[in-house]
Amino acid sequence: MRFELTKEFIAELRQKIVAEDRLWIQEQVLELHYAEVAEILDKLTNDEAKFIYFMVDEDTQADILMELEEEVRDRFLASLSSKEMADQLENLDSDDAADILGDLPDEKIQEVISQMEDDEAAEDIVDLLNYDDDTAGGLMQKEFFQANVEWPVNRAIIELRKQAEDVEKVYNIFVVDDDDHLLGVLSLKRLLFANARTKIENIYQSKKIISVKASDSAELVSKVMEKYDLVSVPVVDYQNKLVGRITLDDVVDYIKEEADKDFQMATGISDKVDSDAAIWKVGFSRLPWLIIAMFGGTIGAKVISNFEASITAIPAMAFFIPLITAMGGNVGVQSSAIVVQSLARGDKDLGRILPKLIREGSVGLMNGLILSSLVFLVATVFVDVHLGVVVSLSLFTVILFAAIFGTLFPMILNRYKIDPALAIGPFVTTLNDVIGIFIYFSIGLLLM
Amino acid sequence: MRFELTKEFIAELRQKIVAEDRLWIQEQVLELHYAEVAEILDKLTNDEAKFIYFMVDEDTQADILMELEEEVRDRFLASLSSKEMADQLENLDSDDAADILGDLPDEKIQEVISQMEDDEAAEDIVDLLNYDDDTAGGLMQKEFFQANVEWPVNRAIIELRKQAEDVEKVYNIFVVDDDDHLLGVLSLKRLLFANARTKIENIYQSKKIISVKASDSAELVSKVMEKYDLVSVPVVDYQNKLVGRITLDDVVDYIKEEADKDFQMATGISDKVDSDAAIWKVGFSRLPWLIIAMFGGTIGAKVISNFEASITAIPAMAFFIPLITAMGGNVGVQSSAIVVQSLARGDKDLGRILPKLIREGSVGLMNGLILSSLVFLVATVFVDVHLGVVVSLSLFTVILFAAIFGTLFPMILNRYKIDPALAIGPFVTTLNDVIGIFIYFSIGLLLM
Repeated sequence: MRFELTKEFIAELRQKIVAEDRLWIQEQVLELHYAEVAEILDKLTNDEAKFIYFMVDEDTQADILMELEEEVRDRFLASLSSKEMADQLENLDSDDAADILGDLPDEKIQEVISQMEDDEAAEDIVDLLNYDDDTAGGLMQKEFFQANVEWPVNRAIIELRKQAEDVEKVYNIFVVDDDDHLLGVLSLKRLLFANARTKIENIYQSKKIISVKASDSAELVSKVMEKYDLVSVPVVDYQNKLVGRITLDDVVDYIKEEADKDFQMATGISDKVDSDAAIWKVGFSRLPWLIIAMFGGTIGAKVISNFEASITAIPAMAFFIPLITAMGGNVGVQSSAIVVQSLARGDKDLGRILPKLIREGSVGLMNGLILSSLVFLVATVFVDVHLGVVVSLSLFTVILFAAIFGTLFPMILNRYKIDPALAIGPFVTTLNDVIGIFIYFSIGLLLM
Repeated sequence: MRFELTKEFIAELRQKIVAEDRLWIQEQVLELHYAEVAEILDKLTNDEAKFIYFMVDEDTQADILMELEEEVRDRFLASLSSKEMADQLENLDSDDAADILGDLPDEKIQEVISQMEDDEAAEDIVDLLNYDDDTAGGLMQKEFFQANVEWPVNRAIIELRKQAEDVEKVYNIFVVDDDDHLLGVLSLKRLLFANARTKIENIYQSKKIISVKASDSAELVSKVMEKYDLVSVPVVDYQNKLVGRITLDDVVDYIKEEADKDFQMATGISDKVDSDAAIWKVGFSRLPWLIIAMFGGTIGAKVISNFEASITAIPAMAFFIPLITAMGGNVGVQSSAIVVQSLARGDKDLGRILPKLIREGSVGLMNGLILSSLVFLVATVFVDVHLGVVVSLSLFTVILFAAIFGTLFPMILNRYKIDPALAIGPFVTTLNDVIGIFIYFSIGLLLM
């Protein structure tokens, strides 16, 4: 039932475009859902995509445009004149139009806006451009249903019908007074079932209304919508005047981006580099992480070189270097990840550092005891009981240290407003490596 | 404007509960949003929570129940008799009721269901219990609006009003024929603005309708809803009969869980263990990862011990062990993470393994060249040019190998239906460590 895009289909389509076979394209492409059309256009050249794009009606154009891959969309829009781009942006929801426009140079923005014919749309977009991307204002759109609290149901329906042209998806109607102050919310369901002459004020919900301020952070918005199970939330200014609406689908994108960010931090990759980008770009984006690790490795080498005499005396000391570093790294990452995850979930109890430290320290103590007992057996069988004692004692110390350091470090980063997820990357691992090696050889020097 | 929960508030509330001060509770607690009431109940004992819970009306009870932390909810429900639990479940949306019931032992399920008074609700729940948690059937609810294609608008409104009692949130009306086959979708907005005598068949949308099958995977559902920008999707059986509805908020939870899973795999922690759980539980949940790392470390020790003669001859060989292992680990994780991320995003082009391998191999080649040049300088200055050559040549080989292995490994896991995210954990790092050490000492033995 669902469309599956194949290479053969694209090849055939390309021929039909060359032949300008509009009938075939109409039947085989334009009958598809706009998300599928966008998927097809992603695979075509700019000129091919244009040919198809300008065959569809304006509303569908807007839908397709927003479904294109960002790179393809940017390329596509860049090939339009300012006038053509203005026409395209007028069709979009104001938040989408502002997002696209915001990425352009200032001059181009001015030029495109001056070419817009719909003054109201232009005004909305200019207004939205003033907000930071990471705020409620940056997420909201200007299209929503609003009804005056004094209206009867039948008048509301007439007024809403006028607004309906601009508002694609409706979840709720925002109820306001004469000065646009937000008073409450009315579900479409309630409106549908209400008597024509009932006044809005008798059926709308005015208590426990959740709204966000335009200056609130996007993070707060996503938390509020999640906590209160909202599909759309009204946005107000400082005087509680209704200025916009944020819908769940916009926030879903935000949630996914945030989760991706943590994953990328933990694995040392960058999302900003497209997976199709030039190889040197991809390589460069990953180099910083590797250089940190190499810098750590160099310091590690320096530390070990200070213990050269020990290695010469007991070469077996070198056997367990990778074990010590690997364990320290893994334990540190586990502890940091717990802190990063609870911070990402909005846990504020982190103010009390001590209990967390004691907890993670206890876990480290327990796992340190288990693992160092195991390694004692391994090292004793491998080499001798002396090395067994050194390796197990070192491992225990390293695990305990890594657990405490791994907990503390992201907390400190967070306090200084640095993304705590930074702590899960090579940074903590590298530091743990160096300190682990130092502990290992120090204990070795002391005991042997 | 938004409620902030404080310790002082909880302390005061506890006193009021003891004093049975219902008026205070009514004003201070029950006037709050249900999500906030749930937040408060999370902090109370079972008996305290019950006292407040049974002060509110049934609909709000259901809302509060679903907002409680899972642990608190389970504890709360466990303290109810089968009859009381049946009453509570009848208030819930069918998907939520089935989720809760599904976690109980079979006997208890039977008992609770037999105590339900609303036969239709009981039947819906029993039906939903048949579906796997990870399928569309497991996500869907039985409450939705449906209208017969033959009805005129005014009859539809009357019929929908009857259905409205059960359906909390309405996004769309599903349009069916006499045999409940799904024909299309009608937005509430269109219904609202339609003429009373217009037939549904003249205003509903029958083309490009997206639905999912009850047996489709939850992953597919989340991808479909995202791709087609849906807030709700109809669920059909094999005969295209309408059986349920899935809403975006249910899928958002799923999306978040999936993102968390990858993060946890990459960092070796487990979400299944509550952050408040006993320390030995937390410790145990992290041990498997550490034991893998330790096993790897032990093999590493064995490998190095085979080169004991080299270390005795040139102790400086040991200096660069941590550098080699750290670099191999980081490069491997980067390559694996890219593959895992594109798999999570539903990229199917991974079938063609070769181009990906060439890409990642080229990135490895480039970064390997840059980093091994750097390390050549370091090792030459530190020790001598001989070691410089050995370390840089080894590092280059290790990086290239890690890039290719890190790309290949998650692809292979995925082909055998194993979660590819497993590859980012200690597993790949550990394997890279061992192989890296082997390469390093082999090259050392050959050249020195």
